[in-house]
Amino acid sequence: MPNIAYINGEFLPLEDAKISVEDRGVQFGDGVYEVVRVYGGQPFQLEAHLTRLARSATAIEVPFPLTTSEWESLIFEGIRLSRYQESKVYLQVTRGVAPREHGFSLALVPTVLVTIREMPLPDETRETQGVAVITLPDIRWGRCSIKSLNLLPNVLAKQQAMQAGAFEAIFVREGFITEGTSSNVMMVKDGTIATPALNDHLLPGVTRQTILDLAQEAGSVVEERDILQEELRNADELFLVGTTIEVLPVIQLDGHSIGNGCAGPIAKSLLARLRAVVAQKMM
Amino acid sequence: MPNIAYINGEFLPLEDAKISVEDRGVQFGDGVYEVVRVYGGQPFQLEAHLTRLARSATAIEVPFPLTTSEWESLIFEGIRLSRYQESKVYLQVTRGVAPREHGFSLALVPTVLVTIREMPLPDETRETQGVAVITLPDIRWGRCSIKSLNLLPNVLAKQQAMQAGAFEAIFVREGFITEGTSSNVMMVKDGTIATPALNDHLLPGVTRQTILDLAQEAGSVVEERDILQEELRNADELFLVGTTIEVLPVIQLDGHSIGNGCAGPIAKSLLARLRAVVAQKMM
Repeated sequence: MPNIAYINGEFLPLEDAKISVEDRGVQFGDGVYEVVRVYGGQPFQLEAHLTRLARSATAIEVPFPLTTSEWESLIFEGIRLSRYQESKVYLQVTRGVAPREHGFSLALVPTVLVTIREMPLPDETRETQGVAVITLPDIRWGRCSIKSLNLLPNVLAKQQAMQAGAFEAIFVREGFITEGTSSNVMMVKDGTIATPALNDHLLPGVTRQTILDLAQEAGSVVEERDILQEELRNADELFLVGTTIEVLPVIQLDGHSIGNGCAGPIAKSLLARLRAVVAQKMM
Repeated sequence: MPNIAYINGEFLPLEDAKISVEDRGVQFGDGVYEVVRVYGGQPFQLEAHLTRLARSATAIEVPFPLTTSEWESLIFEGIRLSRYQESKVYLQVTRGVAPREHGFSLALVPTVLVTIREMPLPDETRETQGVAVITLPDIRWGRCSIKSLNLLPNVLAKQQAMQAGAFEAIFVREGFITEGTSSNVMMVKDGTIATPALNDHLLPGVTRQTILDLAQEAGSVVEERDILQEELRNADELFLVGTTIEVLPVIQLDGHSIGNGCAGPIAKSLLARLRAVVAQKMM
């Protein structure tokens, strides 16, 4: 079977996979998730994703339902059944099924959902030419560091970006940037790479950390700090990082060119370094 | 059948009702909802709930899938099949099923879900003795006037209230109260009834409007205005209003007694007036 899902203890074709309408994920967005990239049949940074999933679950008081090795068995079995070499694995844990009331019993059994979809080939034009982004006020809730299913503001902001002909929206809170709707943001100025410091308003991205590590290994100066919206416009380079987009150069912000208007050398070099790590892990 | 659901065009027992795991309601909370109270087989204020559902759907660009008369037919058929005289009807519209991407196609077919559960008898002790509440910072997103499925902050705040031995949490934003996790808030001072004025941070409650109308008909002075958190503690009366709780007196706020520490006369009188309207509609 190609696109598949694991739900309530069994694997089945994704289009047949269903969840109770009274699952709290359905009626409250009461759950957490992860997206893992599979390269050449190998899930990349799986441990970091599982650690973050556990942390998100704990933050909303959902008991973590599986051990690391149970998750791994499940995911590898799914990858095997899908027969995909290049895929994205979606992991979701919700608080479970209960009659609809806001409050919850701590005895609920969490619902585990895994889906596996084939990953389209990377969009080389997008990677080499870069993308446009817009900025939007960050009106999301105060704990975006939790990777929860409450994603409606992200959905609406992404759509607004697309309607403006842009690829992504970058959120701005009280004058400072936080993150994209489904990416972290990095800028380069005078050779220094800067990205917003972690706090309650942005996700500690797995790819964000990988890229920061790779940049430091390559001898770059890296700063995690508050970044004013105005700084982005004057950056030499701007790029987005994330599990499926990897490293994506930004050449236009709110209609203004960034740097010389072309994908920058540091983003390009970091993408190459990321791909080299991926290739190494696949061997 | 007792508890029932309508999903994808058919009625079935609630426990058998399932939704695709790739419904955008499941993975993004990308949808809107209503809860309607049925008294003696008659849905109360149905038109107001359907109007608000349509408004919420429009606010997030979900095409409204049914006409008012189609909704009515569906709901009355559900009530008939359930055989309940006293029930709560849950209506949910999500953006539909699609491969997981934040952005969406405007051509998606929305998913319509209706569930009907028996309504437990009102808790008379709670009604006559009143309840305790706590206040919590309102860290929700900036458009709580939309009745969306992104309810995780409400869930966590309700749970925090319950863990503190309270019935509800009242949100406070920049010093001003907004609403409860699933109720609107009203206070009485020197005979005047006050409730927060409508804005992006609170829901235009159907029961809120009904109660304001009933209070005015009874000759009370009613104010819709910004209310400071401190005002609540010094109120003569405090009460919550909502579809299923109707009018619920609050006798304790963050551990401090409100008024004389007993359920107040205005809350009691408004509940009686609400029940009289309900009785009239059932005739």
